[in-house]
Amino acid sequence: MSERIAVIEGDGIGKEVVPAAIDVLEALEIDFEFVEGEAGDAVEESTGEALPAETYDLVADADATLFGAAGDTAADVILPLRDAVDSFVNVRPAKAYPGVDALRPETDVVFLRENTEGVYAGHEDRLSEDLSTLTRVITTSASRELAEYACEFVADGRGPDHRDGFTVAHKSNVMRETDGRFREAVLDVAAERGVDADEELMDAFATKLPLDPSQYGVVVCPNLAGDVLSDLAAGLVGGLGLLPSANVGHDNALFEPVHGTAPDIAGEGIANPTAAVLSAAMLLEYLGHVEEGRRVRTAVESVLSDGPRTGDLGGDATTEDVTAAIVDRL
Amino acid sequence: MSERIAVIEGDGIGKEVVPAAIDVLEALEIDFEFVEGEAGDAVEESTGEALPAETYDLVADADATLFGAAGDTAADVILPLRDAVDSFVNVRPAKAYPGVDALRPETDVVFLRENTEGVYAGHEDRLSEDLSTLTRVITTSASRELAEYACEFVADGRGPDHRDGFTVAHKSNVMRETDGRFREAVLDVAAERGVDADEELMDAFATKLPLDPSQYGVVVCPNLAGDVLSDLAAGLVGGLGLLPSANVGHDNALFEPVHGTAPDIAGEGIANPTAAVLSAAMLLEYLGHVEEGRRVRTAVESVLSDGPRTGDLGGDATTEDVTAAIVDRL
Ligand SMILES: CC(C)[C@H](C(=O)O)[C@@H](O)C(=O)O
Ligand SMILES: CC(C)[C@H](C(=O)O)[C@@H](O)C(=O)O
Repeated sequence: MSERIAVIEGDGIGKEVVPAAIDVLEALEIDFEFVEGEAGDAVEESTGEALPAETYDLVADADATLFGAAGDTAADVILPLRDAVDSFVNVRPAKAYPGVDALRPETDVVFLRENTEGVYAGHEDRLSEDLSTLTRVITTSASRELAEYACEFVADGRGPDHRDGFTVAHKSNVMRETDGRFREAVLDVAAERGVDADEELMDAFATKLPLDPSQYGVVVCPNLAGDVLSDLAAGLVGGLGLLPSANVGHDNALFEPVHGTAPDIAGEGIANPTAAVLSAAMLLEYLGHVEEGRRVRTAVESVLSDGPRTGDLGGDATTEDVTAAIVDRL
Repeated sequence: MSERIAVIEGDGIGKEVVPAAIDVLEALEIDFEFVEGEAGDAVEESTGEALPAETYDLVADADATLFGAAGDTAADVILPLRDAVDSFVNVRPAKAYPGVDALRPETDVVFLRENTEGVYAGHEDRLSEDLSTLTRVITTSASRELAEYACEFVADGRGPDHRDGFTVAHKSNVMRETDGRFREAVLDVAAERGVDADEELMDAFATKLPLDPSQYGVVVCPNLAGDVLSDLAAGLVGGLGLLPSANVGHDNALFEPVHGTAPDIAGEGIANPTAAVLSAAMLLEYLGHVEEGRRVRTAVESVLSDGPRTGDLGGDATTEDVTAAIVDRL
């Protein structure tokens, strides 16, 4: 039976890079059924809802989803979609590629970000004219589940080669009860599984990553820490333009480039499709098409090193040129 | 009447860099009365309390405090001390100095970090075997007070020269009620005062700062965002070793290097006193000794560019050598 892939282009360059990634997937001749759904600013404008119920259901019922980007409605789209795939971990590799200008070319880090709780649990209250609160939630169960994923990730050799085990980043010196719980749960699982784990306060991590990224490999974080620290790593490898990500659940997953809608260049056909294509490679691996995933990655790296380049990488190629080159080198 | 300066060396290299900063202050022949207090790991070991009540009172009653660093007890010392001086803003300049190896030598950013609330308000609860919560607190009053300080800071020309106004960094797309309140309060004050203010999501800021620090000058943040983003900036200017900070209250203030106790080199007399001396310069300016503050800064910059250097900057000078050179060039 064919695998059903939900495809949501969203807004801006999402409409350009997602089709590019689909071209690459189609070239592999796997038996995929692609089903399109709508989400984002444009849909909100016409229907009043950034994420129509049909799209939520489409994603929830698919085998996996490829998502592009959404504009101002990003949070209204991506947070419910993470829920639709029941995602407990956001996998964010940040790797500098040969031939791409990076502040720290030696960066090769994979963030495993808790994807359900922390400040994203979203309980906020306006308690008075002057004061609002947000209830940050940390559970041992979600922290352990993330840590178990991290241990398997490391055991399967999916982390960068230069470092064993993982680092847990947190702020348990201030958030003693909540991040204390997170830290302890993650380190407990690592000890039970015999995986090396070290730790770093998230502020110290933010200083040390730019100073020497080679000391880190897999980094396990609470939700917001993972958001900010992985975006920091993006700045070290040359920006968000090349970074894919996976929102992995128990029986479903959603893949998306880390970049946004890039309104300044949207509609011109010059967006860099690399992050979307690498997200498609993560999708392939997730669905067990490991060899095909590897082929896509290798083709992307080859094009990055001596193929056509879009403007963000100093070239003048179009999205189509780059996509054609990737397909050509599969 | 002489001004009373509380002096707390703390642990590790605090015991070396604070005396160095006092040497520099004494060389200026201002009528200061220095009064020593104890805090940190060593005191906790001998008395059971990292911050004895006498020290808290000493700081609360002083005109200003110079603090070094504390080890494992850092949070138990510095958070109450910020309270002792009734500090509402943490001022953290991150500047690369000529002659010092920096990943981004063009970095010149001053973080103005809210210093009383956010996740640091510290209400945490263990609600079940599995679940803990933290109540993050944001008030309009504290946010406005920070913004008013920022507007004066900018109006007084204390921000970096290359940028007008300030940037507010927040995560209001997720923390809509709390960071929404923060964002609105800060932007309202800027509009009332006629100060240019732009904004950035804190994750986007973490990507963009390493890519191009020159686009930022003064950055206004909630408490934890200010902690992490200023530490990120430290990584771009070559580490925490050179960065001073001020915890400013209504009628009192505490100054401290951003670095920690550096246990690896503590006791050897080779710690870099620069951050502590620059913290002393901030103390001078705070107390109205603006000309003396400028003299200290100029002497430090001169020594950094062609004077003796400690090991962290690739030299082999001692703390004393560097301090003597600074005093010499005052
Ligand atoms: C759009 C926003 C809600 C989202 C997040 O904070 O998770 C984004 O920054 C991301 O990292 O995917
Ligand atoms: C020691 C710790 C509590 C403190 C903080 O988080 O504020 C430190 O990181 C700092 O930035 O001064």
